[in-house]
Amino acid sequence: MKFKASINIMPLKELLDPQGKAVESGLKNLELSSLSNVRIGKRITLEVDASDESDARAQIEKACKEMLANQVMESFEYQLEAV
Amino acid sequence: MKFKASINIMPLKELLDPQGKAVESGLKNLELSSLSNVRIGKRITLEVDASDESDARAQIEKACKEMLANQVMESFEYQLEAV
Repeated sequence: MKFKASINIMPLKELLDPQGKAVESGLKNLELSSLSNVRIGKRITLEVDASDESDARAQIEKACKEMLANQVMESFEYQLEAV
Repeated sequence: MKFKASINIMPLKELLDPQGKAVESGLKNLELSSLSNVRIGKRITLEVDASDESDARAQIEKACKEMLANQVMESFEYQLEAV
């Protein structure tokens, strides 16, 4: 079976996000100062070839934990969709 | 009114995504070669202070078009949620 996965990796809430802060002050210069609390993470889409959904989940979690997300600073979540 | 927005910015389908290709070959080394077609973009969350939903949408679209997304190479989509 083929699945399509969308993974969101965001900096942990407890941590400062300097990239987000920089964008926030950039937005102020565009007169968009009502946008606040900007946080910037990664979005990754990929396709998984797996025998079933739980196999697909296992593979995605392995990829996130061992490579895509740095769990000291980031959290991840994902959606799976059969295609 | 306060809204929470989640913006996804992805490289256009028509373009190669070298970062995604690099991750894909990294995943092969983790014995995850059934993951394919990896594409890497940005996910941005922020809060909007706006008079109504259409005002919030206008602000977010301005931010995306003028600063967050490079529309030559990237497309964006977003979800809004009242808080």
